Amino acid sequence: MLKLYDTTLRDGAQAEEISFSVEDKIRIAHCLDDIGMHYIEGGWPGSNPRDIEFFKAMRSRKLKNAKLAAFGSTRRSGVKAKDDANIKALLSSGAPCVTLVGKTWKLHVEKALRVPLKENLEMIFDSIKFLKPKVDKVFFDAEHFFDGFKDDPEYSMKTLGAAIDAGADCVVLCDTNGGSLPSDVGGMTGRVRMRTPAAIGIHAHNDSDMAVANTVAAVQEGAFMVQGTMNGFGERCGNANLCSIIPALKLKMKIDCITDERLRKLREASRFVYELANVRQFKRQPYVGDSAFAHKGGIHVSAVLKSPQTYEHIRPELVGNHQRVLVSDLSGRSNILYKAAEFGVDLASKDEVVQKLLHDIKALEHQGFQYEGAEASFELLVQKALKKRERYFRLLSFRVIDEKKKEDEAPFAEATIKLEVGGVVEHTAAEGDGPVNALDKALRKALERFYPSISEVKLLDFKVRVLGGVEGTAARVRVLVESGDGVERWGTVGVSENVIEASWQALADSLEYKLYKDKKALRAAKA
Amino acid sequence: MLKLYDTTLRDGAQAEEISFSVEDKIRIAHCLDDIGMHYIEGGWPGSNPRDIEFFKAMRSRKLKNAKLAAFGSTRRSGVKAKDDANIKALLSSGAPCVTLVGKTWKLHVEKALRVPLKENLEMIFDSIKFLKPKVDKVFFDAEHFFDGFKDDPEYSMKTLGAAIDAGADCVVLCDTNGGSLPSDVGGMTGRVRMRTPAAIGIHAHNDSDMAVANTVAAVQEGAFMVQGTMNGFGERCGNANLCSIIPALKLKMKIDCITDERLRKLREASRFVYELANVRQFKRQPYVGDSAFAHKGGIHVSAVLKSPQTYEHIRPELVGNHQRVLVSDLSGRSNILYKAAEFGVDLASKDEVVQKLLHDIKALEHQGFQYEGAEASFELLVQKALKKRERYFRLLSFRVIDEKKKEDEAPFAEATIKLEVGGVVEHTAAEGDGPVNALDKALRKALERFYPSISEVKLLDFKVRVLGGVEGTAARVRVLVESGDGVERWGTVGVSENVIEASWQALADSLEYKLYKDKKALRAAKA
Repeated sequence: MLKLYDTTLRDGAQAEEISFSVEDKIRIAHCLDDIGMHYIEGGWPGSNPRDIEFFKAMRSRKLKNAKLAAFGSTRRSGVKAKDDANIKALLSSGAPCVTLVGKTWKLHVEKALRVPLKENLEMIFDSIKFLKPKVDKVFFDAEHFFDGFKDDPEYSMKTLGAAIDAGADCVVLCDTNGGSLPSDVGGMTGRVRMRTPAAIGIHAHNDSDMAVANTVAAVQEGAFMVQGTMNGFGERCGNANLCSIIPALKLKMKIDCITDERLRKLREASRFVYELANVRQFKRQPYVGDSAFAHKGGIHVSAVLKSPQTYEHIRPELVGNHQRVLVSDLSGRSNILYKAAEFGVDLASKDEVVQKLLHDIKALEHQGFQYEGAEASFELLVQKALKKRERYFRLLSFRVIDEKKKEDEAPFAEATIKLEVGGVVEHTAAEGDGPVNALDKALRKALERFYPSISEVKLLDFKVRVLGGVEGTAARVRVLVESGDGVERWGTVGVSENVIEASWQALADSLEYKLYKDKKALRAAKA
Repeated sequence: MLKLYDTTLRDGAQAEEISFSVEDKIRIAHCLDDIGMHYIEGGWPGSNPRDIEFFKAMRSRKLKNAKLAAFGSTRRSGVKAKDDANIKALLSSGAPCVTLVGKTWKLHVEKALRVPLKENLEMIFDSIKFLKPKVDKVFFDAEHFFDGFKDDPEYSMKTLGAAIDAGADCVVLCDTNGGSLPSDVGGMTGRVRMRTPAAIGIHAHNDSDMAVANTVAAVQEGAFMVQGTMNGFGERCGNANLCSIIPALKLKMKIDCITDERLRKLREASRFVYELANVRQFKRQPYVGDSAFAHKGGIHVSAVLKSPQTYEHIRPELVGNHQRVLVSDLSGRSNILYKAAEFGVDLASKDEVVQKLLHDIKALEHQGFQYEGAEASFELLVQKALKKRERYFRLLSFRVIDEKKKEDEAPFAEATIKLEVGGVVEHTAAEGDGPVNALDKALRKALERFYPSISEVKLLDFKVRVLGGVEGTAARVRVLVESGDGVERWGTVGVSENVIEASWQALADSLEYKLYKDKKALRAAKA
């Protein structure tokens, strides 16, 4: 059976901006175990103390399915395997499996390693021969295999031969520089397969944007082990992305490498790893990204609602994802109907309200409004179109003052606000880190007196986008605000030439939405 | 010769969070023209007013290399081509090329379109036949071709036949759902090639993380037109990424689709499109991303410094990128030297000033400053570190007031400012469209009395980015301002939790830079 070999904790950690603590690594190892990886490469114990600590910590922990692997290079020139510090570190890691990387490209042997070609073969053979009886499995990562094979097939085959003769359980062909095309990887993997009965693996990098395709091409030619990382983390452009490879193997090539149930946890696992890496998720990421099954074009939406397979290559639920419909000026009537239904509003398609709403949205989007990510503002717009909007508060006036009194001092920001709630006027003020923050604080302060639940609302994100681009400081800006109350998250939008006005619209929508949704929930509970 | 067909402005704009203004589209079209795209698909005039406006605006503009294409679907059922609103919109767009999308998969004809199979063929034939004599080129986008061909090869070949018989200049095989593997795409493209002498194109989506590989597979089987988008923007997981495809074609497959000189502009063009889309760049993006040639692992770094090809699949300069070494202060120091040299400042590497500047820049970058695109602020920083900064004005104070007096009225913004120039105090005020605009106007008004050349400065662009993302309205913002005086353009930057303070920093730098550079030019003229 095909084996999945994850190297997020070793090769993945080579990515710019990624640095896992020992605790992070332990949590990720359990997550990888849960979704059914067969091997988890935990680190390079010979290269840094954190990895040594990780393997030490893992000795007292049990994995359900996976086996841990420690990574290192073949012995150095002129040193016996048993005396090589790196190889000793591999053994003392206590990992049941060892993956040794060795040179297979003459250029590297001569220019980087600087040893005779023959000695490199001995270094591979000795290292594996020494380790093999002491651990469960030894894998050989044939570094730069495809570049080496192109350059001199005989020499690179000899390096594989040395590993196989010494007892390697699998020889893994590495596209280390990520420069190969699938036709090359497939072709060369097939040629290796013809020349050795040994088990072959594939380890691809994404420098040509083809790591997933290269991996699949190798599997089609008989590779039985697939190395990669979660979300494609890794040095330079990253490694082959297991979040894309696993569903391709399972759903498209019908290779039963993990269970259906575990495949459904893929999106959750992907997000977990992003969280621990503290890296923003890539929305357009295949299979597991937020946008992977998000439809915007009107024609697509109307078709996908009739029959999902019209614009979805797999059912999103199979990988734990879900369909989304976005609303924008590219959308047709179907998007509006779908969204309205999500909000519990049933609009018949020929309804005048839908026509009017569609017209309003197109006009608003032309002004720069955007309702993707601002579903709460959209829902309030629907309520308004239906003439069902309830007013929880009315603005009478606000004033924001921003004053800088010395060249090297931060300015002082203050907002005053006058609101009316059910005939009662509230006039208050607040200071803030900036004018928008001051206005935000003053608005909440004014409303909390009437609606204590406002204090539950937190502003989670605040985005400003300058629209147009040739009008300098008089350009229109769009403000997107994301809010949450510990139960739900919602987004709102505002557009104006005045950044404070645009922020006001988005903030006012956010708090109005909170009051509206609380009331809706109350009504639902009573019913 | 192979043709590059860019659809960033149409299919790319279907991406979540992307919404181009007409002005954005015009600027991107010129950028695409500059890097040598053969065709630029500008939009779908039948679907939204913004695209109609774009084509209208383009009529008075000249492209150097590219031809514009307008996109639309085949005529509706039961309507003559000449009476079809969508087809009429294509013609009135004035675009020299037209790309028509039509159904080739029985499932879609029956479930989405709901017309008899035969009528679909007529719709394709009629539409192309009608358009062909009226425009330079008609391309047929064979939607869902690979799914359709798998399902019923004969029917999908008939749809291509209808297009070819009607005079289509190219039939473009679309992997609309992005679900195909390269082996499928290559195989089926080859089979189509055997059955028709017509020109074939490829249009791939990235839902399986293989759009680039699928495109290359089709080219290897004879496709002569490649459709894709900059940075892979597009609906769901995006379209085939032209920033990855172009270098693969040119450097790996030796297909001479653009000149070397234009290839070197690829990274710049990629970043330009990200900026206008206001989307964060994807660091690990192949070829053009910030991390694409960034080396972190110690072994890699030492090898790559000896011989770049050990860990780089191409020379980064070929696509306008550069090697980065993510290690120590050493790499930082060479960056500073490199940049300072660009500004004509010669700093010896061990100079104390370099040390201090390096320290300052690291601290400022940590706060969120960024000097890419803000070279004028960087140059002023160097002048300051060299203790050569000349003060043209000093701020004594400013105050900005933003007042909203009615719920449905735009607020009123006013700024007062007090400056000192050579011992003379100027105290003045201005109104604006928003607080930043008011401050901008007041600052210019105060300075023009002393420095008449300030009136030459125009603010060309103003961008706001919220840094971090969890602190709501108290988050820090970075403001980038681009200015010009008809001779030069320059960028400046400001960072603060207060959007007005951040704008102030960038505006003040911009005007200081104008005065500094005028003086420098004067000195150079005298010398």
